[in-house]
Amino acid sequence: LEGPLVASVDDELGSPWAQEPPRHALLKPASKRPFNAEPPIGLLAEQFYTPNELFYVRNHLPVPVISPEDYELEIEGGGKEQTLSLERIKALPKHSWSGARLCDLLRQQGVQPDEAKHVIFEGADLDPTSHPYGASIPLAKALDPRGDVILAYEMNDEPLSRDHGYPIRVIVPGTVGARNVKWLTRIVVADRESDSHWQQNDYKGFSPSTDWDTVDFGKSEAIQAMPVTSAICTPQAGSRVKVEQDEAKGEGEGHITVRGYAWSGGGRKIVRVDLTNDEGLSWHVAELEQEDSPDGRHYGWSLWTARLPVSQAQRRAGDVEIWAKAVDSAYNVQPEKFEHIWNLRGVLANAYHKVKVKIV
Amino acid sequence: LEGPLVASVDDELGSPWAQEPPRHALLKPASKRPFNAEPPIGLLAEQFYTPNELFYVRNHLPVPVISPEDYELEIEGGGKEQTLSLERIKALPKHSWSGARLCDLLRQQGVQPDEAKHVIFEGADLDPTSHPYGASIPLAKALDPRGDVILAYEMNDEPLSRDHGYPIRVIVPGTVGARNVKWLTRIVVADRESDSHWQQNDYKGFSPSTDWDTVDFGKSEAIQAMPVTSAICTPQAGSRVKVEQDEAKGEGEGHITVRGYAWSGGGRKIVRVDLTNDEGLSWHVAELEQEDSPDGRHYGWSLWTARLPVSQAQRRAGDVEIWAKAVDSAYNVQPEKFEHIWNLRGVLANAYHKVKVKIV
Ligand SMILES: [Mo]
Ligand SMILES: [Mo]
Repeated sequence: LEGPLVASVDDELGSPWAQEPPRHALLKPASKRPFNAEPPIGLLAEQFYTPNELFYVRNHLPVPVISPEDYELEIEGGGKEQTLSLERIKALPKHSWSGARLCDLLRQQGVQPDEAKHVIFEGADLDPTSHPYGASIPLAKALDPRGDVILAYEMNDEPLSRDHGYPIRVIVPGTVGARNVKWLTRIVVADRESDSHWQQNDYKGFSPSTDWDTVDFGKSEAIQAMPVTSAICTPQAGSRVKVEQDEAKGEGEGHITVRGYAWSGGGRKIVRVDLTNDEGLSWHVAELEQEDSPDGRHYGWSLWTARLPVSQAQRRAGDVEIWAKAVDSAYNVQPEKFEHIWNLRGVLANAYHKVKVKIV
Repeated sequence: LEGPLVASVDDELGSPWAQEPPRHALLKPASKRPFNAEPPIGLLAEQFYTPNELFYVRNHLPVPVISPEDYELEIEGGGKEQTLSLERIKALPKHSWSGARLCDLLRQQGVQPDEAKHVIFEGADLDPTSHPYGASIPLAKALDPRGDVILAYEMNDEPLSRDHGYPIRVIVPGTVGARNVKWLTRIVVADRESDSHWQQNDYKGFSPSTDWDTVDFGKSEAIQAMPVTSAICTPQAGSRVKVEQDEAKGEGEGHITVRGYAWSGGGRKIVRVDLTNDEGLSWHVAELEQEDSPDGRHYGWSLWTARLPVSQAQRRAGDVEIWAKAVDSAYNVQPEKFEHIWNLRGVLANAYHKVKVKIV
């Protein structure tokens, strides 16, 4: 996965995109401005810890330029206001996820539990009208020591890169990425959610029959925890897969090896991943590779590997469709197909991943 | 819903079933010994709060006979052991769910948070070999003030009935009923889960292809929080439903009213219920009736009502199938059909509820 960093160049004078950071050549952007990209899916499940430079990037706006000496974080709550320097934040006790615990900071500032309140985060990234990116989470999540919300300044023991929120981002584990505000400059404890576009009118789910004429964003809940999902990383759709012969079995009997990831929101652990290559007539349980975190705080993905038997009839036919479905610790499962969860925002697309391959 | 109580009579001398309590005549038992019953589904959604005598009953063993004066609860944990009388428990601060908070009791006894530990509950109901019913939950759930685990002695402001655990039962809101141990006599903080049959070899989920020859209960996680689910209560399957004419619309245009409940585990709130009567070509969002509890502590069910338009073609055809699916606050959805979630224990059957009716 070694590879060159590619500079981002924008020649237009005064363009807000003129100071984007360089990025790894393997990050294929789905959108360049803002930059949104992930590594090729075939490489994704090769290692449990993704190298920082290949970690997927989601930006909404141009990446801000922030010098560590000038960086300031403002926190309003508990009837007080304080401004922290980067040095101050790094001097706080360091959490295992390489940052300061937000629950400690808020409690020290006198913030009391209140089920009706929210914590609003603002970033240094600005939209064309100079409004910062913003999002909020329930105060209960922020104050819960088992909620594990941190102000992160390191990622895998390295300082955050610019694309990932240098010098400080919020990590809200188990919660949709959109609430994990990067380039964090302001925290406000408030009676209401963030009034940002992204909190109010963007990351929400709807019935499949809701269209842009009938949609009422005010009636839908902002996404926080995410549903259970999984993906097949190898083999890839359309690829030719050689059957591995099973020595112990008869002529022509064999299997294929399938590998991928699974994840669920709210810290829920993946408890099982089932695979089928005969449209669910027979399901095969995958081996899981996952961290030994307690349920409710199981934030990392689970990699999985399954051996799927291939029948002689399937070998003759050549075409096989592989389906994966994951089950989390609340025994929630993925829905079978996208049709009945489709929504006009295109979010929450956690139906079975189905991949057609050619058996050779 | 007024109705007679029916005495349970067992003439056999010395039968463990000789002292079962009387029960409401409308509770139709799926099994009589042990007694397991619920009210007719058509009545279920009529009111938000189900009257105690109609509340569904799940027993595993004969109902024990316990006198309030003799009742004792033993608690082991934090390196100590104490025995509480019923009077002592009732003298503790009373939680809104009409019982004492387990988190307070455990903390007072010196129990410290430990992600690897469990709280084991034992009941006074005995199996034929004189082993008590038992189950456990993670210590983290028991110690969390937002986990809301209580030792309940009242249900809707009345003392618990014998069928519901008199004089004390555990309420573990958001968690499968099997961990809500009734006739509670012993609490132990331990390094392991309960070793009871019901914890180890019963309430667990499996892949659809796991059969009684291949099942390994040790490899599956005990059910704790439950997945999102919903049910259609009215109209009932096979019933004749009269179309309500829409005045504003043309001749023959009308709708039917559908009513039911939805629920999710882990305190996750129901955020939407979608209904269809054309196999998902069009979905209609139901109105929700629910308590105003915060997400993560939203333990009650949500009742819902939907108006489904009926086309002239559907009126002519007569037969209509109604589907309901619920969405919880983590945007988990129900799977579409039972086929791919079937398991040999028959648990976790949360696929869409589909009801065929005749339109008249
Ligand atoms: Mo996005
Ligand atoms: Mo049961």
